[in-house]
Amino acid sequence: MRDAYHEELDSISDDLVEMARLVGSAIGRATTAMLDADLQLAENVIAADARVDELQHELEAKAIELLARQQPVATDLRVVVTSLRMSADLERSGDLAQHVAKQARLRYPESPVPRDLQATLLEMGQLAQRLMAKAAEVIITKDIDLALQLEQDDDEMDLLHRTLFQHLIDERWKHGIETAVDVTLLGRYYERFADHAVSVAKRVVYLVTGEHADAIQAVGPVEGS
Amino acid sequence: MRDAYHEELDSISDDLVEMARLVGSAIGRATTAMLDADLQLAENVIAADARVDELQHELEAKAIELLARQQPVATDLRVVVTSLRMSADLERSGDLAQHVAKQARLRYPESPVPRDLQATLLEMGQLAQRLMAKAAEVIITKDIDLALQLEQDDDEMDLLHRTLFQHLIDERWKHGIETAVDVTLLGRYYERFADHAVSVAKRVVYLVTGEHADAIQAVGPVEGS
Repeated sequence: MRDAYHEELDSISDDLVEMARLVGSAIGRATTAMLDADLQLAENVIAADARVDELQHELEAKAIELLARQQPVATDLRVVVTSLRMSADLERSGDLAQHVAKQARLRYPESPVPRDLQATLLEMGQLAQRLMAKAAEVIITKDIDLALQLEQDDDEMDLLHRTLFQHLIDERWKHGIETAVDVTLLGRYYERFADHAVSVAKRVVYLVTGEHADAIQAVGPVEGS
Repeated sequence: MRDAYHEELDSISDDLVEMARLVGSAIGRATTAMLDADLQLAENVIAADARVDELQHELEAKAIELLARQQPVATDLRVVVTSLRMSADLERSGDLAQHVAKQARLRYPESPVPRDLQATLLEMGQLAQRLMAKAAEVIITKDIDLALQLEQDDDEMDLLHRTLFQHLIDERWKHGIETAVDVTLLGRYYERFADHAVSVAKRVVYLVTGEHADAIQAVGPVEGS
């Protein structure tokens, strides 16, 4: 019984890792589609999100079946409930990658991003992808130090986001309002994507330590974990 | 045993309704704070969100205890899992109301919204509040027809959102980029708030009918429910 149980739990964890892998790849490809004004790539990203949604539904069904049949308690129960929450974070990240791709599609054959902001948005896209890759690694390894690193990476995202806004409100801005609106929304999508990756990592910290990540952050890295 | 179980389930439902009431009130007050440049009211909304977060933690703790002690199956299990998801929607709605209030605080003593857009944003704020009031009513009554109404209300929000964008990209826009950025973000916050209210209602539909709301919408209202 316990073996079947752990197999099911592993299968849920595998789904989470696969979702993280898919949405990490999606944000990378959406960024490329946006910067290169590549319509075909944008369409691919938009279509591929269906698989992420499907995985979330499968994961939810598995979790409910596991709760009903195995009736886990204590830590095991918390693992299942937390997995449901992580899957919601990952599903939403997929939506955000899709939003970036839709913005690329909307402005095709132009890029929604003017040349002088392409470097900043490329950095945001790459950072978002790295954050999600680390979140996947945290799910697999349950490495608390790595999980806490994600919050620092997120500070870097906040910095890039602020740089973006400074460009926008600079009086020398010459790209007009529509582009300002596009860039504002794109900046928001990357920021939220990063938030969800951090949230996934924090939930793993909570599972492993029983403490919220913020509390651990405040007293420095966890010893011997 | 079943009595204790149903009492706990009712308590979870009460928490959801209370969360919906709080965030509905928060979006209404945040809208007023934003339009009137009322710093005190904005600060109140920002501080009050802590109670919503607290309720979510309480709800999660209750749900996990209920799963562990009562080990519900089938529909009852689905109710608990869905309640967890609804609480996440409501918690996030609270964040979005807080974002509106923070934008009001950031631009104080000015309003972030120029006079000619105040009517549109007032409508968005009122609609958001009505949507959340209806979502609370759907949680209490499990009224499927009312739940399906929320999707129509959401179409109205999309329309208001489009009106807002048309103002922004109108060549006669004279409020500058910073205001355009503010209005873009505010529009996004209301749109997402409405999405979460609709999501809560859809989850109730799924619980009651076992079918996703979209499928029901496609074939018209449910008979005799």
